Amino acid sequence: MELHPIVWIIPVAGLAAVAFALYLAWDVLRADTGSAAMQEIAGTILEGAVAFIRRQYRTIGLLALGGAVVIGLVIALVEGRDVADTSIFGPELGFRTAVAFLVGAACSMASGIIGMYISVKSNVRTAAAAQRSLVKAVQMAMRGGAVSGFLVVALSLLGVWAIFALYGGFTHPEQAPFLIVGFGFGASFVALFAQLGGGIYTKAADVGSDLVGKIEAGIPEDDPRNAAVVADLVGDNVGDCAGRGADLFESTAAENIGAMILGVAIFRVADAAGWPHPEAWIFFPLVVRAFGLLATIVAIFFVRGSEDEEPMNMLNRGYWVTTLLSVGGLALVTSTMMNTGSQVGAGGLPVWTWFFFAGLVGLATSVAFVYITQYYTSGSWRPVKEIATASKTGPATNIISGVAVGFETTAVTAITIGIALYLSHWLGEQALPHGGIFGTAVATMGMLMTTAFILAMDTFGPITDNAGGIAEFSHAEGNARQITDRLDAVGNTTKALTKGYAIASASLAAFLLFSAYIDKVNLIQTNRGGELLTSINLADVNVFIAALIGSMLVYFFSSLAIRAVGTAAAAIILEVRRQFREMPGIMDYTQRPDYARVVDITTRAALRQMILPGAVAVGTPIIVGLLLGQAAVAGLLMVGTIAGVLLATVLNNGGGAWDNAKKFIEAGHLIDDDGTVIGKKTTAHAAAVVGDTVGDPFKDTAGPSLHVLVKLLATISLVLAPLFIR
Amino acid sequence: MELHPIVWIIPVAGLAAVAFALYLAWDVLRADTGSAAMQEIAGTILEGAVAFIRRQYRTIGLLALGGAVVIGLVIALVEGRDVADTSIFGPELGFRTAVAFLVGAACSMASGIIGMYISVKSNVRTAAAAQRSLVKAVQMAMRGGAVSGFLVVALSLLGVWAIFALYGGFTHPEQAPFLIVGFGFGASFVALFAQLGGGIYTKAADVGSDLVGKIEAGIPEDDPRNAAVVADLVGDNVGDCAGRGADLFESTAAENIGAMILGVAIFRVADAAGWPHPEAWIFFPLVVRAFGLLATIVAIFFVRGSEDEEPMNMLNRGYWVTTLLSVGGLALVTSTMMNTGSQVGAGGLPVWTWFFFAGLVGLATSVAFVYITQYYTSGSWRPVKEIATASKTGPATNIISGVAVGFETTAVTAITIGIALYLSHWLGEQALPHGGIFGTAVATMGMLMTTAFILAMDTFGPITDNAGGIAEFSHAEGNARQITDRLDAVGNTTKALTKGYAIASASLAAFLLFSAYIDKVNLIQTNRGGELLTSINLADVNVFIAALIGSMLVYFFSSLAIRAVGTAAAAIILEVRRQFREMPGIMDYTQRPDYARVVDITTRAALRQMILPGAVAVGTPIIVGLLLGQAAVAGLLMVGTIAGVLLATVLNNGGGAWDNAKKFIEAGHLIDDDGTVIGKKTTAHAAAVVGDTVGDPFKDTAGPSLHVLVKLLATISLVLAPLFIR
Repeated sequence: MELHPIVWIIPVAGLAAVAFALYLAWDVLRADTGSAAMQEIAGTILEGAVAFIRRQYRTIGLLALGGAVVIGLVIALVEGRDVADTSIFGPELGFRTAVAFLVGAACSMASGIIGMYISVKSNVRTAAAAQRSLVKAVQMAMRGGAVSGFLVVALSLLGVWAIFALYGGFTHPEQAPFLIVGFGFGASFVALFAQLGGGIYTKAADVGSDLVGKIEAGIPEDDPRNAAVVADLVGDNVGDCAGRGADLFESTAAENIGAMILGVAIFRVADAAGWPHPEAWIFFPLVVRAFGLLATIVAIFFVRGSEDEEPMNMLNRGYWVTTLLSVGGLALVTSTMMNTGSQVGAGGLPVWTWFFFAGLVGLATSVAFVYITQYYTSGSWRPVKEIATASKTGPATNIISGVAVGFETTAVTAITIGIALYLSHWLGEQALPHGGIFGTAVATMGMLMTTAFILAMDTFGPITDNAGGIAEFSHAEGNARQITDRLDAVGNTTKALTKGYAIASASLAAFLLFSAYIDKVNLIQTNRGGELLTSINLADVNVFIAALIGSMLVYFFSSLAIRAVGTAAAAIILEVRRQFREMPGIMDYTQRPDYARVVDITTRAALRQMILPGAVAVGTPIIVGLLLGQAAVAGLLMVGTIAGVLLATVLNNGGGAWDNAKKFIEAGHLIDDDGTVIGKKTTAHAAAVVGDTVGDPFKDTAGPSLHVLVKLLATISLVLAPLFIR
Repeated sequence: MELHPIVWIIPVAGLAAVAFALYLAWDVLRADTGSAAMQEIAGTILEGAVAFIRRQYRTIGLLALGGAVVIGLVIALVEGRDVADTSIFGPELGFRTAVAFLVGAACSMASGIIGMYISVKSNVRTAAAAQRSLVKAVQMAMRGGAVSGFLVVALSLLGVWAIFALYGGFTHPEQAPFLIVGFGFGASFVALFAQLGGGIYTKAADVGSDLVGKIEAGIPEDDPRNAAVVADLVGDNVGDCAGRGADLFESTAAENIGAMILGVAIFRVADAAGWPHPEAWIFFPLVVRAFGLLATIVAIFFVRGSEDEEPMNMLNRGYWVTTLLSVGGLALVTSTMMNTGSQVGAGGLPVWTWFFFAGLVGLATSVAFVYITQYYTSGSWRPVKEIATASKTGPATNIISGVAVGFETTAVTAITIGIALYLSHWLGEQALPHGGIFGTAVATMGMLMTTAFILAMDTFGPITDNAGGIAEFSHAEGNARQITDRLDAVGNTTKALTKGYAIASASLAAFLLFSAYIDKVNLIQTNRGGELLTSINLADVNVFIAALIGSMLVYFFSSLAIRAVGTAAAAIILEVRRQFREMPGIMDYTQRPDYARVVDITTRAALRQMILPGAVAVGTPIIVGLLLGQAAVAGLLMVGTIAGVLLATVLNNGGGAWDNAKKFIEAGHLIDDDGTVIGKKTTAHAAAVVGDTVGDPFKDTAGPSLHVLVKLLATISLVLAPLFIR
């Protein structure tokens, strides 16, 4: 089959993004690394991070190998048992799926490692830059973050492309998407454990360090006398950078694959109708992504401003450039690839225009989420102010108020997603008969065009957080700490908005992956001569029970993740207390605390604690599928996704708002009735610190792990569908 | 039609229960009312409670009147527009539904008022009894609670019976259930506002009183110098007693009606097959209830024991008697009423035996929930101990641990409900072809046989809580306060277990009401000649969006309810602070605080704050139904119920566990590493108080209101179905 020439933009943009990431990495690495004290602590952080990642990835690698073998065998035995169409079924499928799984797993691990490495390198350079200039510090953190952003998106694009090419996607594009679902599952599988392990590590270290340092010993945050401080700094890198990298890698991969599977349905229509280049409908998602990458490369150069400008504005400017260029790219791709010959859509408009509108809905949704999250988690608006004010009456009202805000955020989230789904579905139906679901796929792709930029902004968060820690730790010159504090507050917002963005894209993608699941089940049933799955009927008792279990799963999983943080934090507290007790010289700086030991204890505790929630997440859909069948799994997937999206929204935004309510008070914005400032060292501040601590495992462990969970539910169901059909 | 004679047990048992409630009320009222100080404070509480209820019920009554007019008009205009079968459709239906709505509303209000009145009267008598004997105090509180329990269940039974008789249920039993859905909606409507208003009142007073008294002024709980103390005591009565009474009244009514609608399907089969007394299948749910009432009357006499016995054991003993008698009643009812002529079920067993087993599943589920909740919220097991231990490291870890426990409780809840649904459905299918859904109906009825006893145990909670307050306030003799404290801890558990029971029955009932909704839509469509609703397809974008909105609704509603508590509490705090400032004599007991003013402020604030969440709850399903149609409403109802059940579980059990973790520490059970007791006035205790305060609006405002919300979603959909069909 002669491919549409535009598809070659996929490897080209992928490689260009890798090259650009290498340029950025070189640009970061050649920058000033600051004082000797800075370099020393940066070296210690790197050491701890590498030690954790090495041990974590050894565990995850082994789990992935075992997973690949099991998946390969199961699919070879189950799906191959009654082969009619050997081109995409048969025992060989087991092998192919296992290989795709391993490639997906490997790419995901690579994204995590590289992102983490560059972010550790950027931390110290950001701290050094902050000694001289706000703008330089912003750019350093943003470029370090962009390395991650580009690599994650480019690797997922190139990986899917390669597997697709290898598995005959250029000759039989209508079959290949079903062959590459293993890639998505491999990516999700690694992402789950990477995000869980990293999330537990980072928050156990953070909570443990705060409790034993700030509260028990009464020394400031990031004080070098606290033996847990280095573990805390390591945590930002392994959790927020490596974990989030793996998370977004799998999102991109899963969403690409889901959209390609939906493209197959239109491919068949196009092929039958004789439209030119029917395969373009399958490649479309990847091409849109490629243009998004190119848009982001340009946008990075627009992250600049003057020294007295609000740093968030610099980032928002880059984001707007990405969005506008994406609109252009989207118009180009839809008009070029969606050639339907003489067929037109509703109102006599060309088919592509309707899909272009659907893509715009996706881009608009992405913008909406960026601003919704800023509203709920930044100190300039009501919610954070409300929490800060509630802190005046103590920790209880701070917590109650934060929970109320967290719960409240679900409303605008759900309504926005609902409108986006409804509109994009409606637009798709205007374009083509039964095109509604592809309309939502195009919207998802539109939304995801800005992923690389969003991810760069996200990684900006932990880099500035770490830079602040390094500045404090190494007694940096000038107003470096003030600058990093400002950047850290911005970083809290960007971290929160990535989560909002990730969760919104997850829910659009879930609808898409869910439809892909039904398509796959029906393909298998056609082959086996079984009954087609035409409806996931909630009134069916098995579907209802599975929906109940799916909703429960997100709570239970979060409970395990949150408790894991507590357990690991307790181990840290005991160790730091022991050091304070047995090494009395620590307090007057005559003795150096044993940082490495705390890093080691945290590593072991986090890795031990990630297993149970991980096993529950992987095991539940499999058990439900085996007991209750293919329709029930779809119910679990669908309702579990809704539940997961909403609970993650609550945890992420609640946590972000608590964090920034504390920062709001620390910045002196909380005013008493008589006009005096209620700042640090007041009971209101102490109450806000409680809220911040509570929010930590919510927003950095359970919340982000839930993103991965909902994608994992989808990819597990897709891959293991043959096992569940009865 | 000649009715099966056993149905006459319905009015007989209903009237017997009313008579027995009157006897218990007389027994309570003739008991010793304690010292003059006790009587004085009891009088003040009664005054405040009556003032609140009067104003609240005036507001609710007006809302209900408006609701009745709107419902009557809508149904008359919409459902009557194309009448084929005038016997159950037509304009008259509007009038009948409106009347049923008002009767339901009135019965619900009556249950609330009477329950509240007797519980206020029991409080002081329990306090007086506690001066002499633990057993006497237990019995007094239990009997006071039982008055509520019997009246609620009996009124709902008699109300449904009366409306059924009036609307021709004795001659056309297959039509009447559709005519009486208005009764359930009226009950839900009142219950929503009663529970919301009462819940906001009680927790605003509790939180406000604690913050301004215990934390700011440093005076003990229930100290008479705190002007908010009386409002707090009033709150227990208006929230926990009146609110819960209305809540369970509507549950019983809605579940009876839902089960009767499902009975219609079997009635048709029975009628066609010529089985004797086909109408028995429709009356069955009410008869089962009637036997449950009789069982509870006997069981009340078994609540007794010795002075050194654990009070919870006395209650558990009564509960077991209820359960065992219910098993006997269930066997009698199923074997008598389920006469299928020569038709037998699977395995050659009589049909009734399979349904009897289904009923047993329901009873077993009820028992399971009683013990599951005790496990999660009583100080004897891991969860509460875990929270108490986490309090050692401060409020943040206390909160994190409580949230983890709350989330965790969803697991066993969902799995138990899932098993109950699966088993009862399976048993129903063994009994009759397509009998699965009636199997779940029988299980629900089995579960609800013990309602009156459970409700008595529930009301036991606020009565003992109040008795403790009165004992403290009036400086009671002997170890009255210690006894009421012990009873109060038991009361926390019984309150929590009622909520567990209510939520489990809500989820079984939801599946039942959901099926009833589909039946009703199809009845209307058959009449109109429209398309039947055969499947609620989650893959339909409208259903998915509605499911998302339904899940969001429970969070948003809870957010509003929780925030309402904060807003009302702030008003209380300002007023108490003003009194401390302007009336300096309060602190040295020379001036009496102005209790009435705080009661008045709380009343107004609570009533103002209940409107918005109430409007959101009523409005959302209507808007979704109008925009997205009949299938979407079913999706909202179903997934909203799942989400509501799980979130309520989290809020109820989390709150109960926090409360008892505090009590665990106060009772001196928390031990330090070196063996010393960590009791009151320690930082761990302060941390536990924070958790308790956070849990208050969770477990007593948002959680219980969610129960009502999920039932309301069901009854709204049932009544307004004709409006949503497109």
